[in-house]
Amino acid sequence: MKIIDSTPQKDGFRMPAEYEPHEATIMIWPVRAGSWGKDPSKAQHSFKAIFAEIVKSEKLILLADKEHIDDTKACVCDLPNVEVLEIASNDSWARDVAPTYVKDDLGNVRAVNWEFNAWGGQVDGLYADWSLDNKIPLNICQMRDTDMYDAAPFVLEGGSIHTDGEGTAIVTESCLLSKGRNPELTREQIEEKLKQYLGISKVLWLPRGIYMDETNEHVDNVCAFVGRGQVVLATTDNKDDPQYELSRLDMEYLEGQTDAKGRKITVYKLPIPDHPVLVTKSDVDSFEFEEGEDIREEGERLAASYVNFYFTNDEVLIPAFGGDNAESDDRAAEILQGICKTRKVVQIPARQILLGGGNIHCITQQLPVRDPGTVKNMMRFE
Amino acid sequence: MKIIDSTPQKDGFRMPAEYEPHEATIMIWPVRAGSWGKDPSKAQHSFKAIFAEIVKSEKLILLADKEHIDDTKACVCDLPNVEVLEIASNDSWARDVAPTYVKDDLGNVRAVNWEFNAWGGQVDGLYADWSLDNKIPLNICQMRDTDMYDAAPFVLEGGSIHTDGEGTAIVTESCLLSKGRNPELTREQIEEKLKQYLGISKVLWLPRGIYMDETNEHVDNVCAFVGRGQVVLATTDNKDDPQYELSRLDMEYLEGQTDAKGRKITVYKLPIPDHPVLVTKSDVDSFEFEEGEDIREEGERLAASYVNFYFTNDEVLIPAFGGDNAESDDRAAEILQGICKTRKVVQIPARQILLGGGNIHCITQQLPVRDPGTVKNMMRFE
Repeated sequence: MKIIDSTPQKDGFRMPAEYEPHEATIMIWPVRAGSWGKDPSKAQHSFKAIFAEIVKSEKLILLADKEHIDDTKACVCDLPNVEVLEIASNDSWARDVAPTYVKDDLGNVRAVNWEFNAWGGQVDGLYADWSLDNKIPLNICQMRDTDMYDAAPFVLEGGSIHTDGEGTAIVTESCLLSKGRNPELTREQIEEKLKQYLGISKVLWLPRGIYMDETNEHVDNVCAFVGRGQVVLATTDNKDDPQYELSRLDMEYLEGQTDAKGRKITVYKLPIPDHPVLVTKSDVDSFEFEEGEDIREEGERLAASYVNFYFTNDEVLIPAFGGDNAESDDRAAEILQGICKTRKVVQIPARQILLGGGNIHCITQQLPVRDPGTVKNMMRFE
Repeated sequence: MKIIDSTPQKDGFRMPAEYEPHEATIMIWPVRAGSWGKDPSKAQHSFKAIFAEIVKSEKLILLADKEHIDDTKACVCDLPNVEVLEIASNDSWARDVAPTYVKDDLGNVRAVNWEFNAWGGQVDGLYADWSLDNKIPLNICQMRDTDMYDAAPFVLEGGSIHTDGEGTAIVTESCLLSKGRNPELTREQIEEKLKQYLGISKVLWLPRGIYMDETNEHVDNVCAFVGRGQVVLATTDNKDDPQYELSRLDMEYLEGQTDAKGRKITVYKLPIPDHPVLVTKSDVDSFEFEEGEDIREEGERLAASYVNFYFTNDEVLIPAFGGDNAESDDRAAEILQGICKTRKVVQIPARQILLGGGNIHCITQQLPVRDPGTVKNMMRFE
């Protein structure tokens, strides 16, 4: 592999939409006690449910550190199509710490490395030491021999961007303009970085994300592309819910917008759970926090949203929170199935992932298929 | 390979929906003068446009006979991801003459051989000698080492069935109950054969297909699944058009129906071209018919429909007829793009394929991905 001294935009590379074909999905085996509790087996159970769906239609690339690699291998020994890589990490948010992949018209795939600072560094980062996480893209690219663009020191997480594969990215102002990321850059300069490294020509800036989302409101918890010119947005009809105003601002913004191809954006509402998902005493008791780590408190509202789903080649994996939200869970799955007709929508028990601080989309990162090459000189018969 | 003395239903195999992941698409290089003219290069041009889209996201398996195999290889030498097989055929309707593939929950894939009699045999078949076509499934399975169920002497073509991969098939009465196929079987016996060999539990029987469709109105020209519980139907608002009554009967039938899972069927209308596509004098002059072959006459209306599209792993290939139908072409592509949000809809110039007697779906046959295996014993962490 080599580090490429250029940008994807210059070289004709673009980040595909998540629903374009995948070669693989990258995930990280969860063990951090501050996220998954002293006994991480409950969270691991949800992770395994996701592994099982992924390997039905693409490869799973699973990272684990030296201490846990044997356990990890044992835990996936009953799964086909898994590649386990010994790579250390600080936690398991593959979306945010694995590289972003870009692709050109010949089907070549390259990686992009961003600077990672645990969602806000010294300002409002969520843990004190993120040095292992920040090396993950280089480690993956070296082990898998993938050429890599280096966008560092520009700070970005994969969960703070969505692309349509046709020139458009969608982000939130609350996250990308936060003080803990690139305070020295203007909005215009940040937009320019996105264009260069995602190979896009237009950025849609949602004002806000999900209430209480500790990533400064990543877009992947509030809004996602479900097709060309089509997004889903987390909403609520309950005017007393603090999410109401946040979603209203986003809806208002999107109503006036077109994408890079000039298409008006169609917005499908995907209501949040009817009942807030709260941290319980038993949840709090299960954690073991390190110094400098953001902690959980009893009664705290978690940033539950159904938009944090993930496309595999054949399915859409959507969070289910259970309990008094069983009805909202099914409603969300039904809405998404209505939109994503040709993929099977599969519910994943996700309360334990949410308790860790994110959801299905946050712990997965797609690697696009390397196309066999485009077809030039097709006009032989003309 | 072996011929399996059982049925897919008994062994837990089912025919997946076309929009489930493909390993490959089978096609046949077109050379028959009675279908593609004395100079088949115009039709070959449309075929090549399809090849180029297919290889972007899956393998193309291309059949040619001994006489044309070198030409064929030369013609695809600029394409990646192509497997050329030397197999003789009478014509190029891969949908109808290649095997139907079925898959089990472990991801194993097997083939089904049907008896083929050129769409009606001595009664109303379209050519006199179909002996090469009828051997294609066995030839493919031998060359690619695929185990095969043999449904013969039951007569069926792949274009006369669509499945949703979840227990439902859709067919037309006009075709499956035609006198030229299985006149000795009752409707109930035919339905039973479909259940056994497609691994389904429910058959939806549309009364009719597309006006002037010489396959006795194959379902794949009039109605197709675009998702679970969702179909598109070819329609027209023009009450003076002979298609109006045929589509009305189908719509009326579908309104009362549920699929194998008990879901009501949602029907999306996909209007036929605004202007009939007619055979011209220059078309007629280009053909060279064999004895016993159905011929084309000047002014004859062709069975043009946009429903004859094909799902690749990443796209939907839809016919475009051009000329005074350019506007209808775009309207159809737009409707389909609105339904199939996560796949890119690509228009293929298709008048030459239609002139041969079918369209994109008729010349393609999908081979489902062999899954790496399902995941049992997932409950280790419970």
